[in-house]
Amino acid sequence: MTDKEFDVTPWDVEGNVDYKKLIEKFGTERLTEDLKKRIYRNADERNLYIDRDFVFSHRDMDKILEDYEDGDDFFLYTGVGPSGPMHIGHIISFKMTKWFQENFDVNVYIQFPDDEKFWTRDRSYDEVEKYAKDNLKDVAAVGFDPDKTFVFKNTEYIGNMYKAATKLAKKVNNSVVSAVFGFDSSTNIGLNFYPALQMLPTFFEDKRCLIPAGIDQDPYWRIQRDIAPKLNRKKAAQIHNKLVPALTGPEGKMSSSKPKDAIMLSDSPDEVREKVMQRAYSGGQVTKEEHREKGADLSVDVAYQWLKNLFLEDKSRVEKIAKEYSSGEMLTGEVKQILVDELNRFLKEHQKRKEERGGELVEQMMYEGSLAQEMWNNKVEL
Amino acid sequence: MTDKEFDVTPWDVEGNVDYKKLIEKFGTERLTEDLKKRIYRNADERNLYIDRDFVFSHRDMDKILEDYEDGDDFFLYTGVGPSGPMHIGHIISFKMTKWFQENFDVNVYIQFPDDEKFWTRDRSYDEVEKYAKDNLKDVAAVGFDPDKTFVFKNTEYIGNMYKAATKLAKKVNNSVVSAVFGFDSSTNIGLNFYPALQMLPTFFEDKRCLIPAGIDQDPYWRIQRDIAPKLNRKKAAQIHNKLVPALTGPEGKMSSSKPKDAIMLSDSPDEVREKVMQRAYSGGQVTKEEHREKGADLSVDVAYQWLKNLFLEDKSRVEKIAKEYSSGEMLTGEVKQILVDELNRFLKEHQKRKEERGGELVEQMMYEGSLAQEMWNNKVEL
Repeated sequence: MTDKEFDVTPWDVEGNVDYKKLIEKFGTERLTEDLKKRIYRNADERNLYIDRDFVFSHRDMDKILEDYEDGDDFFLYTGVGPSGPMHIGHIISFKMTKWFQENFDVNVYIQFPDDEKFWTRDRSYDEVEKYAKDNLKDVAAVGFDPDKTFVFKNTEYIGNMYKAATKLAKKVNNSVVSAVFGFDSSTNIGLNFYPALQMLPTFFEDKRCLIPAGIDQDPYWRIQRDIAPKLNRKKAAQIHNKLVPALTGPEGKMSSSKPKDAIMLSDSPDEVREKVMQRAYSGGQVTKEEHREKGADLSVDVAYQWLKNLFLEDKSRVEKIAKEYSSGEMLTGEVKQILVDELNRFLKEHQKRKEERGGELVEQMMYEGSLAQEMWNNKVEL
Repeated sequence: MTDKEFDVTPWDVEGNVDYKKLIEKFGTERLTEDLKKRIYRNADERNLYIDRDFVFSHRDMDKILEDYEDGDDFFLYTGVGPSGPMHIGHIISFKMTKWFQENFDVNVYIQFPDDEKFWTRDRSYDEVEKYAKDNLKDVAAVGFDPDKTFVFKNTEYIGNMYKAATKLAKKVNNSVVSAVFGFDSSTNIGLNFYPALQMLPTFFEDKRCLIPAGIDQDPYWRIQRDIAPKLNRKKAAQIHNKLVPALTGPEGKMSSSKPKDAIMLSDSPDEVREKVMQRAYSGGQVTKEEHREKGADLSVDVAYQWLKNLFLEDKSRVEKIAKEYSSGEMLTGEVKQILVDELNRFLKEHQKRKEERGGELVEQMMYEGSLAQEMWNNKVEL
């Protein structure tokens, strides 16, 4: 990590992000070893992202555990804007969310803000629908409990949400959304209203809500945390992951708008191999000789970082790679090959689940599962 | 009418309104004698408000008639914000709307913006609901065709409207609603979004929409008329009435927030008598002697203006009162007594219809009538 300037907002992530500074800047809490242990005391299994400090920051995670240890439930909330095909970076929060659901047996709400994606660009609903259809199956393939997970598109579920959302909207004025989201006079009145709908699912149950998300999403929830007490409701807790860097290096995060620099969830084994081998930013040296002598800079090596943070459960294997790669014993091509194998193994399983069960699971999570039916049969109360 | 300054905005009407100047200021068209004749050629009966130039201005009324004469239908749209009990002034646009429905056999859409009324003040939904319940019965008592009229509360019908409204919202930015509605940084993000929902019913059918309303409502529809062509839809036509003055005189319009200066639709005969006799602004002279000598100033006399514009169908009777009252032959008390009788006759009938059939008609217009069922079974397309 360098001291280079960085800027993380909900809309953009640029530069070489210093996560320690980010915690200070945003005013979040570090996920301490004590808190990790406390999570694990309540969970049935360990979690790779937490183990590797890829999930590293939080707000009120201690309160979530306090509630839970007192026998009180909590619930999870996440979402994805259907504006393109999904990539590896998108799946992290979903996998983290699934881990919490599995280990704490709680409900999950997943918002598809099709309205917001229609509003933000010159994009038609046909386009948004197309991506939503595909993204929904990707989410389904993550393996949420279909009876404890409710997935909804805003334009479809609005009839059950609107009145409650109007109560949130009344507590938020134009200057607040301008300060938090950067909206201005040229922003359309739909997007300007959207924060009310984004916030609403944090109140779907009268329990504490936990949002697993990238640290860049933190500012989104400031308004929620300001107004929740005014409504006699709980502030949304969050647990933050670091940003998944693009293949091309740690400058900024992966984006669907640059598919060549991302691993898409639909990539074939050959595409994965080609992308990783040709485009993944290497911390190794240019010539083999130089590499053997100086070794690799692990902190900027995308293949190593991905393996360590996202894929290799076996810690000793990571340590071995770290040692051999940084000393120059291991070559970039070898590390990349391990990543290609891990990615392709993950994607093969993901694509199989998406293909075989995606459609059916989407139906359950959106309409037919127990939680979905309960949500459709009741209006959100606030 | 004086040259005193006047200001008419959707939120406020103050001063001694000069309607001729208002037509120029707003850029609407005068309802000419030719246009009146053309309306009557197509209608089955005359209309008091049009006859007396109480309905005096329009936008595209000629196009409405052109469509109609070509065998093309149009439809009507009006509404009322449930923020208090309704008064005589509220009923004018509804009666005008009903007249068009009866004479042109067209559909009517009536919006109850409960969301907007919740957003504009420190007002709970309980309060809004209470007024809505009562206002709905008042509207029902006007006598719309229950199979050709759809009445809806925004928070209830939103599921069928929202997606179409998002398409309007995308075409309207914060600076536009700031200019037209005076919204600013302290406006909540709900009210800021509301113009999209207010506009949407003008697109409920792919025909021209006619809005009968007070001239002060004209600015509301400027945005609709700007964006309709961009959506390949028709600009909303309007036909404007003058504002019903408060009892206390032609300075400003009647308001539910000053019930003593208004005739409420629920007033008893005694209340009406007391209000008119004690509070109606008189154009007559202070002493009987002076009055006999100088006569009354009809232009500011509320009882005379109300009788002429809103109640007395018999033109010769109006002319007789005008002559005798302005000459001093007739006294203020006599003119007021005629108004009391007319008001009480109207209110007795209204209250009887409201009491006897209000509940049932509301059910039909909101849910069970032919048009209501069609509207509930289909989402609004845009």
